[in-house]
Amino acid sequence: MLAPVTLAYQTYGTLNAEKSNAILICHALTGDQFPAETHPITGKPGWWETIIGPGKPLDTDRFFLICVNVLGGCMGTTGPADINPATGQPYGLSFPVITIGDMVRGCMRVVDALGIDTLFSVIGGSMGGMQVLEAVAAYSDRIFSAIPIATAAYHTAQNIAFHEVGRQAIMADPEWRDGNYLLQGTLPRRGLSVARMTAHITYLSEQALQRKFGRSLQDREKVKFGFDADFQVESYLRHQGLSFVDRFDANSYLYITRAMDYFDLETSYGNGSLAEVFKGCKTRVCVVSFTSDWLFPTSESRAMVHALNSVAAPVSFVEIETDKGHDAFLLDEPEMFHILQGFIDGAAAARGLPQ
Amino acid sequence: MLAPVTLAYQTYGTLNAEKSNAILICHALTGDQFPAETHPITGKPGWWETIIGPGKPLDTDRFFLICVNVLGGCMGTTGPADINPATGQPYGLSFPVITIGDMVRGCMRVVDALGIDTLFSVIGGSMGGMQVLEAVAAYSDRIFSAIPIATAAYHTAQNIAFHEVGRQAIMADPEWRDGNYLLQGTLPRRGLSVARMTAHITYLSEQALQRKFGRSLQDREKVKFGFDADFQVESYLRHQGLSFVDRFDANSYLYITRAMDYFDLETSYGNGSLAEVFKGCKTRVCVVSFTSDWLFPTSESRAMVHALNSVAAPVSFVEIETDKGHDAFLLDEPEMFHILQGFIDGAAAARGLPQ
Repeated sequence: MLAPVTLAYQTYGTLNAEKSNAILICHALTGDQFPAETHPITGKPGWWETIIGPGKPLDTDRFFLICVNVLGGCMGTTGPADINPATGQPYGLSFPVITIGDMVRGCMRVVDALGIDTLFSVIGGSMGGMQVLEAVAAYSDRIFSAIPIATAAYHTAQNIAFHEVGRQAIMADPEWRDGNYLLQGTLPRRGLSVARMTAHITYLSEQALQRKFGRSLQDREKVKFGFDADFQVESYLRHQGLSFVDRFDANSYLYITRAMDYFDLETSYGNGSLAEVFKGCKTRVCVVSFTSDWLFPTSESRAMVHALNSVAAPVSFVEIETDKGHDAFLLDEPEMFHILQGFIDGAAAARGLPQ
Repeated sequence: MLAPVTLAYQTYGTLNAEKSNAILICHALTGDQFPAETHPITGKPGWWETIIGPGKPLDTDRFFLICVNVLGGCMGTTGPADINPATGQPYGLSFPVITIGDMVRGCMRVVDALGIDTLFSVIGGSMGGMQVLEAVAAYSDRIFSAIPIATAAYHTAQNIAFHEVGRQAIMADPEWRDGNYLLQGTLPRRGLSVARMTAHITYLSEQALQRKFGRSLQDREKVKFGFDADFQVESYLRHQGLSFVDRFDANSYLYITRAMDYFDLETSYGNGSLAEVFKGCKTRVCVVSFTSDWLFPTSESRAMVHALNSVAAPVSFVEIETDKGHDAFLLDEPEMFHILQGFIDGAAAARGLPQ
């Protein structure tokens, strides 16, 4: 058992007197509890500023937004980089393997501590979407509406495979020191960087990469015939890898990817049937997928929608046409903004919240 | 300039008196000159035994097959693992960066040495297909027919990106020793293994991985909650990575992936127009792609076919329905066998070869 556990969270907007306007935002693999405003550490804009703020779908004038750093994370919530009080040393690999369920239980502890009984909504993309689905499965009575975006009810073999490559890259780095790098004053920079590079390709689409980079060269007229970054796409990926190392803990990456691999709602809650998972679900669900997302393809969203429909749960579904790939949920996607706005307005009216 | 160069090749069947029945087989990234019969080193079956042999499309009773280990390779042809006679040490990174064009020039030296003026056909998949296209562009007069399979006229940004991840994994391994591992008695096993694991995922399709492995566990009833290979797909990938290290040279991997990245027929031969590349092409071309190949998708084959059509070159095109992904060209694909047989028989008749 892991104890004590610190849960780092951030809120935006004001909780109304009835405590009925709270929205839980669940973050993705490498996200954190700062979806809006300037990040206090990196100085960059929040990762979901596109949809948060006055007049936007997650309107801070209307809603009280809560975002919790996931268990196992590295932005304040207890994770493998933190000191184990029992030993006085970083947990490292003595940290217990965690699940998406554990993350959601963590979030709900924060919701409890804020005195909120029922969340108006839970929203998230990718691993955030997995948490949304888990929350609906485990706490449907306490969730009025839910918006799982670019996600699936289980992790596929291909997705497990890509995660395994990333983990092997980290663990192959001698500076990882069997997970004890913090104690030994090293950092598995190159391994973590390679892991991030691989993952980053899967977040984009072939079309997006081709449109953005194609075969364009990096600061040169002709190829140099060598192993430097001749192509812009190489230079871009290297940058993605290296900058990631500065903001993320390698062991957190291992634990969180593992939690995603283990995610399988059917086995956890449905005894092998996805419909069974959602039986009796009263939560209004809005499923969103993207045409060019090959990591969490529309077919998997459709399977969720079928399951929800088969138990007569209130569900709507939109597949958004875009060439931006999986990362589309974080980007400027006017059609997504429009869909979210409509669904949230409808749910708010049904909940008796002012428009 | 690289000299001397050794070219290791293998032949099957008998060259006829007119020297008109020779087929050049071009191998893929990690292939070699042993597409048929038992491999003299690994003891495994040839990598293209599915289509080579009496009664098969590449019928050894009818044709004289030639397969050359590519320049930069590690199965006998001069590559970075070989001794540079000028220094008495392995070339390592002093080996010049090579191109697909260099590989094809190497193959044609072997064809010349065998006294063959015109090849009846050139065939290959993936990087082998790139060589086929390069051969058609550079030596159309000497090639009666050509079969590029699961390939493209240039390497896309996404493909360059995956290759770059693999190279970074190798170069991040301290045992790589800046390319001097042979001299220093080390081997970048873990880096090369991670590179192979990443690449291997791209050779399959999501459907094939899901069908083959799904979320099946490896020798256990329940997940163990750890970083061992819980899932079969992890265990499979690790095996793919580790067994690759025993048969392939890490620096060869760097050079050959780079050659693929640099491949861009339009720039090399067409002054920016793919149609220009094939202007005046007399070679009969049969382009083959696979529906689930996301590394070299059908759209790229179609672009080649458009270009060939636009200059009235004799071209046929088949997209084969399969869920096996890019690797389908190496596997049991009866529809592909049927297509190859038909095209080869037709070309043989046109060439006046006995059926």
